[in-house]
Amino acid sequence: MSADQVIMAGGGIGGLGAALMLARKGVKVRVLERAPEFGEVGAGLQLAPNITRMLDEVGVLEKILPMSVQPRRLVFMNAQTGEMLTTLDLEDAKKRYGAPYIVLHRSDLLSALLEAAQAEENITLHTGHQVTGVEDQAGSVVVHCANGAEFTGQVLMGADGLHSVVRKEIVQDEPICSGYVAYRGAVPIEDVDRRASMDDVVVWMGPGMHLVQYPVRAGKLYNQVAVFRSQEYIDGKEDWGTPEELDRTYSGMCDAVRAAIPSLQRNNRWPMYDREPVQTWTKGRVSLLGDAAHAMLQYLAQGAGQSLLDGAALAETLSVLGDGEWTAEAVGAALSGYEDQRVAHAGAVQSTARVWGDIWHVDSHVPMILRDEVFRSRDVYDYKFVDWLYGPVQDAGTTSAAPEAAATPSAAPAGQPRTPAHA
Amino acid sequence: MSADQVIMAGGGIGGLGAALMLARKGVKVRVLERAPEFGEVGAGLQLAPNITRMLDEVGVLEKILPMSVQPRRLVFMNAQTGEMLTTLDLEDAKKRYGAPYIVLHRSDLLSALLEAAQAEENITLHTGHQVTGVEDQAGSVVVHCANGAEFTGQVLMGADGLHSVVRKEIVQDEPICSGYVAYRGAVPIEDVDRRASMDDVVVWMGPGMHLVQYPVRAGKLYNQVAVFRSQEYIDGKEDWGTPEELDRTYSGMCDAVRAAIPSLQRNNRWPMYDREPVQTWTKGRVSLLGDAAHAMLQYLAQGAGQSLLDGAALAETLSVLGDGEWTAEAVGAALSGYEDQRVAHAGAVQSTARVWGDIWHVDSHVPMILRDEVFRSRDVYDYKFVDWLYGPVQDAGTTSAAPEAAATPSAAPAGQPRTPAHA
Repeated sequence: MSADQVIMAGGGIGGLGAALMLARKGVKVRVLERAPEFGEVGAGLQLAPNITRMLDEVGVLEKILPMSVQPRRLVFMNAQTGEMLTTLDLEDAKKRYGAPYIVLHRSDLLSALLEAAQAEENITLHTGHQVTGVEDQAGSVVVHCANGAEFTGQVLMGADGLHSVVRKEIVQDEPICSGYVAYRGAVPIEDVDRRASMDDVVVWMGPGMHLVQYPVRAGKLYNQVAVFRSQEYIDGKEDWGTPEELDRTYSGMCDAVRAAIPSLQRNNRWPMYDREPVQTWTKGRVSLLGDAAHAMLQYLAQGAGQSLLDGAALAETLSVLGDGEWTAEAVGAALSGYEDQRVAHAGAVQSTARVWGDIWHVDSHVPMILRDEVFRSRDVYDYKFVDWLYGPVQDAGTTSAAPEAAATPSAAPAGQPRTPAHA
Repeated sequence: MSADQVIMAGGGIGGLGAALMLARKGVKVRVLERAPEFGEVGAGLQLAPNITRMLDEVGVLEKILPMSVQPRRLVFMNAQTGEMLTTLDLEDAKKRYGAPYIVLHRSDLLSALLEAAQAEENITLHTGHQVTGVEDQAGSVVVHCANGAEFTGQVLMGADGLHSVVRKEIVQDEPICSGYVAYRGAVPIEDVDRRASMDDVVVWMGPGMHLVQYPVRAGKLYNQVAVFRSQEYIDGKEDWGTPEELDRTYSGMCDAVRAAIPSLQRNNRWPMYDREPVQTWTKGRVSLLGDAAHAMLQYLAQGAGQSLLDGAALAETLSVLGDGEWTAEAVGAALSGYEDQRVAHAGAVQSTARVWGDIWHVDSHVPMILRDEVFRSRDVYDYKFVDWLYGPVQDAGTTSAAPEAAATPSAAPAGQPRTPAHA
């Protein structure tokens, strides 16, 4: 039995997406998913124009648009006062960045990727295969699974998430707990409080908390994510971020925010972890993608999207290796090219997501005044906060704030990656 | 010996200014200064258009302009990075508010007020008279001095500063120590580091510190005030805010800020106090003005100016009582009118000065990002931060930011008084 070209450890959004993009460029991929079925937990996800532009190029966007929603605006609200602070006009942003901002249910995206992957000759899918051991040999990499199966490939990609087993081969670190927890839920749209906005992605920001709301599944479901910093975690309690603490934290918020809480699922709490950005994801024939490479806090809504960008970059660099034997040098060059495209950028997103969350969650008087003023005084068509992420700008003729303001060298917005995180 | 109309306890800027404005409206005033000579300690002071407009109306502005400087701009800098964050165009502001923004030496202002007061028949000046006791009698108020002197007046105004003796008759409170200390100094302009701006009022903001610089005395002297939060105070040391701590705090700042430190006077440290705003400054025939009424932190540069506004309001309301006996009812109505003009506004300035200082002095990463972004993204001709203080706008035809921005009900700037301080 000849060696696979790429073994993908993990069949989530990142792993299946990468497999699909590799396969479409002629690379043979074996996907090893540890769960008994392919599937996604969680609720909605957001795909900004930097992601949908790429998905359009690889032919995936058209598959997911029918089950997506294209919100009109991204709206930032003060969760205590109910004041609308600023908005991002997503219809204008679509022109600016040449692609839509979409939201959809995670399982809808996973299903679309799975269906497309199943239709690819170049992809072999396995469930119930948990990777437990890796041997990087001179000319190949051998992967051992918990069920005794063993596969030999030219390259192993660890797409096995936050608690990646493959990552241990490359980076000696641990996930970092933020002390924040999320409660999520997508409920039938008819069950939603009528004050909720059906056209927008709404972010409510309050002291040590935020709530995100948007419709998914072509408007049939309404997705809500309630996040808060757990005092119980700070106090060292084993059982932290409980539903009771959720209720206590949200009790001080405005009516519209409190109205969201009853429709959240309470049986699943999601502690929020990330990892420090690292300089390399690669060792020999083994590399990483998605959360295994760059687990990030969700505050820029880029987790899934960045893993899809990994797949696109990987497909671009590995596909040039062709059909023959992949030498260690050729693999090294290809993975190095993959890292050149992805490591620094994903690291900037990891760092900026932390700062962005810190900005949302400020909890003392003066920082809240400042945060609100930054948001409130922003020109609705000032894109300097997102150009670095959603760009490059495709159509400079779109509505825009005064160019001199955007071009000022001193105009370093909060959240731009050149601002050092956690300095 | 007939009763004086007004006894002014205190002959500083507030007391002499009020005496002058009262006398010019025909009110007889006796000023009791406890020091052996009239004089002012400290260095420069700033008089914004809300003050100079009034001083112009009462004929005082022309006396002080020759020894003042009219700076071109108010400039806000980041003390660590050296970045210029925003400016207020004081030439444009002069048109907007119908009066100049001036800076001068405290002793030059005091001398001008003293000289004008000495020329007034209606003013009797005493030095070496410290008020130690007050008896509010039915038809008059009797004032006892430490030197045994005793005076009877229709009204007693406590203009006796932060540690006011007269205030004890009216309000049971104590000055509040901010834990910040200032080192001040005005040095010959030729001794100043050449990087300093000779045209501007420059405010350098850093973590737990700020430095203010501007020329005074018609440009012959350069005034500098270095302020910082004392860790020694927090640690409970008796001798806190020492010159050594000044050096330590400023050592982390940019070159231009460090260059300012050698020319500060180190033999006099100024701990910074204020008081909580109160609802009334008056009891019977006794009332307060200046720091005795509304001691404030200096961050809005309004301390001296607000005391001069007190004098103008007092002159307006007391002068209508005329030459005869002032009944308790008439005095009550006049002092009530004085309070209507001044108490709420001065309280807003006290509260906002605290918030303003807190904004300058933010000392952790995210609040500093937010502070800088608020300042940096401000339109130079957006006056919403100061209209409430320097206004009303005299000439709406001046350069201005988009009116819709200023008129938005949600546009509550940091530092505007409707933002509750220390909530």
